Amino acid sequence: MPEVVSSIVEKPSLADWTGAIRRSALQDMLVEASRPGILSLALGLPAPELFPTTELSRAASRVLAQEERALQYSPPLQSLKRQVVELMARRDVKCREEQIFLTAGAQQGISLLTRLLLNPGGRVLTEELTYTGFQQALQPFQPQVLTVPTDLLTGMDVEAVEGLLKGGERPAFIYTVTNGHNPLGVSMSVEKRERLVQLAERYRIPIIEDDPYGFLYYEEAQVQPLRSFSETWVYHVGSFSKILAPALRAGWLVVPEEIIRHLAVLKESSDIDTTTFSQRIISNYLAEENLDTHLLNLRREYRLRRDTMLEALEKNFPAEARWHRPACGFFVWVELPEAMDATHLLKIALETEQVAFIPGSAFSVHDRVLAANCLRLNYSNATPARITDAIARLGRVLNSQK
Amino acid sequence: MPEVVSSIVEKPSLADWTGAIRRSALQDMLVEASRPGILSLALGLPAPELFPTTELSRAASRVLAQEERALQYSPPLQSLKRQVVELMARRDVKCREEQIFLTAGAQQGISLLTRLLLNPGGRVLTEELTYTGFQQALQPFQPQVLTVPTDLLTGMDVEAVEGLLKGGERPAFIYTVTNGHNPLGVSMSVEKRERLVQLAERYRIPIIEDDPYGFLYYEEAQVQPLRSFSETWVYHVGSFSKILAPALRAGWLVVPEEIIRHLAVLKESSDIDTTTFSQRIISNYLAEENLDTHLLNLRREYRLRRDTMLEALEKNFPAEARWHRPACGFFVWVELPEAMDATHLLKIALETEQVAFIPGSAFSVHDRVLAANCLRLNYSNATPARITDAIARLGRVLNSQK
Repeated sequence: MPEVVSSIVEKPSLADWTGAIRRSALQDMLVEASRPGILSLALGLPAPELFPTTELSRAASRVLAQEERALQYSPPLQSLKRQVVELMARRDVKCREEQIFLTAGAQQGISLLTRLLLNPGGRVLTEELTYTGFQQALQPFQPQVLTVPTDLLTGMDVEAVEGLLKGGERPAFIYTVTNGHNPLGVSMSVEKRERLVQLAERYRIPIIEDDPYGFLYYEEAQVQPLRSFSETWVYHVGSFSKILAPALRAGWLVVPEEIIRHLAVLKESSDIDTTTFSQRIISNYLAEENLDTHLLNLRREYRLRRDTMLEALEKNFPAEARWHRPACGFFVWVELPEAMDATHLLKIALETEQVAFIPGSAFSVHDRVLAANCLRLNYSNATPARITDAIARLGRVLNSQK
Repeated sequence: MPEVVSSIVEKPSLADWTGAIRRSALQDMLVEASRPGILSLALGLPAPELFPTTELSRAASRVLAQEERALQYSPPLQSLKRQVVELMARRDVKCREEQIFLTAGAQQGISLLTRLLLNPGGRVLTEELTYTGFQQALQPFQPQVLTVPTDLLTGMDVEAVEGLLKGGERPAFIYTVTNGHNPLGVSMSVEKRERLVQLAERYRIPIIEDDPYGFLYYEEAQVQPLRSFSETWVYHVGSFSKILAPALRAGWLVVPEEIIRHLAVLKESSDIDTTTFSQRIISNYLAEENLDTHLLNLRREYRLRRDTMLEALEKNFPAEARWHRPACGFFVWVELPEAMDATHLLKIALETEQVAFIPGSAFSVHDRVLAANCLRLNYSNATPARITDAIARLGRVLNSQK
């Protein structure tokens, strides 16, 4: 029988969940907002001019000169685990090296925990507006997502969480960003933290506490992470991306010791559970350079940028607009009158004033109409002068649309 | 109602697939074989003394001194994609930058493709003995794994593949290691390559071609990758781990352009699809240093180690043992008489001669008894003197057990 090789270009059959894929709003914005000449308040990028580049460069040189296994496969880095335990202690979290799992950034921590806890078609509980990277991690599972509202001053509606659990819902886990919420900017009140952890313990539902901004607080009173209230039911997700540099791709989990081995199998199958060159650079940096001075510097500069933005909003935005003062993180959340459409405003803002932000609806779990009148504004990735300029431009757009 | 917080330490409910988790043989071996004093031929590690550490150190310094966005989130690195296209051209693979997807090592490439192509409970087709990292990537899907035998001189049994497809089987994909097979050491014959690709095209089943060893060939005639025969139905997985250094965690896929956007969503949800510091170091190394000289050096040294091992096997192993000469990669596969149990031999080898290898059964997809009389011996990670010593020791163990 002669070979008949089909010359028709056919597409492979992909897994079913890919049918539901949508490109993330953040990816699209990255393209749009990175056009030359655009003044962007869109993405949640840290300020590259604040990266400790010289210190990290020194650390990299030391690692390559001194550490024999610097470039080889090797087990997860014990020294970095010890250093993470010390870091967490500053946040009033008591943990042990055996509870630390090193990841390629916070997103990998969220992704691994989701894969560990969630069955396909299972249930999770989170807020109506939440981090899009978490929503993406959920997609392949096509889960039922239970949501509760978020109060802009005190955080996640914990009473609503209690109502769902009392009503018999048993999600695989609860996900929340406790400090400097993305996109809402709010940090959860201490009363709600205690209450949420009590609910997790009573109903035996783990909480994934996503905390990339926890070290970037701008007020005196730093609130304790959920993890400080429960060793068993809170899985804490930490990151070096916002306090050192994102391209190092390094983060950590603080989790019960008994799930570490499962995470190790998952990570090994994902990208090999090995010490990376980046992890060694960070460990060396933490041992030999001064993180405290660096963090003080970051907090001072980001506080200045936040205050600059708040002042500019006061001066330029219409009287009907509402916002709060974030105590932590990278974002101010602005509510406009209900009739206004932020996606439409973005289009005009890009065209007429070359300025970008992210419309609130991009963060909505279920209903694309939710938060359609809201804007997420980033203040970490522009200098104070550029923030002042950008908010003045946005103010002109808003005032032209009234 | 007073709060009653349970003080019973309860475990969270994990996703169902975790019930089937087994720690990989390689992980266990890493622990055992890394004990001080053990002469290990177990793992598939490259030789750290051959890493281009000085050149990579220079590249890292240049990146940090010269590239503004070196440590920031940024889109996948276009310069590295271009360089991968050039690298693939040396292997007779014609591809375009738009078909390159950058990964955190080959394992991430395998994991992402599996997640993209396979539905939970779906089917895949591979060899009876295959890379354990691929088997781990399959676990969460609990798939039906169809297997075919492998000929130790010509590779995967492509007739058996045809039989399955003709019989109506439609796996989500076919997985194979084409060059320097892990664990069998064999490189697939050119006839089988052409035939396998024809089958993939006819039945419209994509092939995942896992090729981490493709640049490490030790004979004159280098066989073309499957990807050189089909742009549409072969998804090629490449890696810098074996040719530069594993701790950089960098690899690539060559795939049809239309699936890149799906991979980007998957990678973004896994660990953010961003340029890493490591990728920039590699791109700078490729631009400024001499990869060709480095590859020549690697091939010369690994060829010497292979030949040293083959000579030592000839001299020390019992006459009933069988093995072949690998043209590529890191491994020699040894078959002992059927009655011998390699796992038992490993125990004795560790105890009496402080030498380690991996028993063949560790690579078996279905039947733990398959290849129980076989040994995978690694020659890349020991100097010729240590190889000679290790094989002499193993020979003593074998001869004592006859």
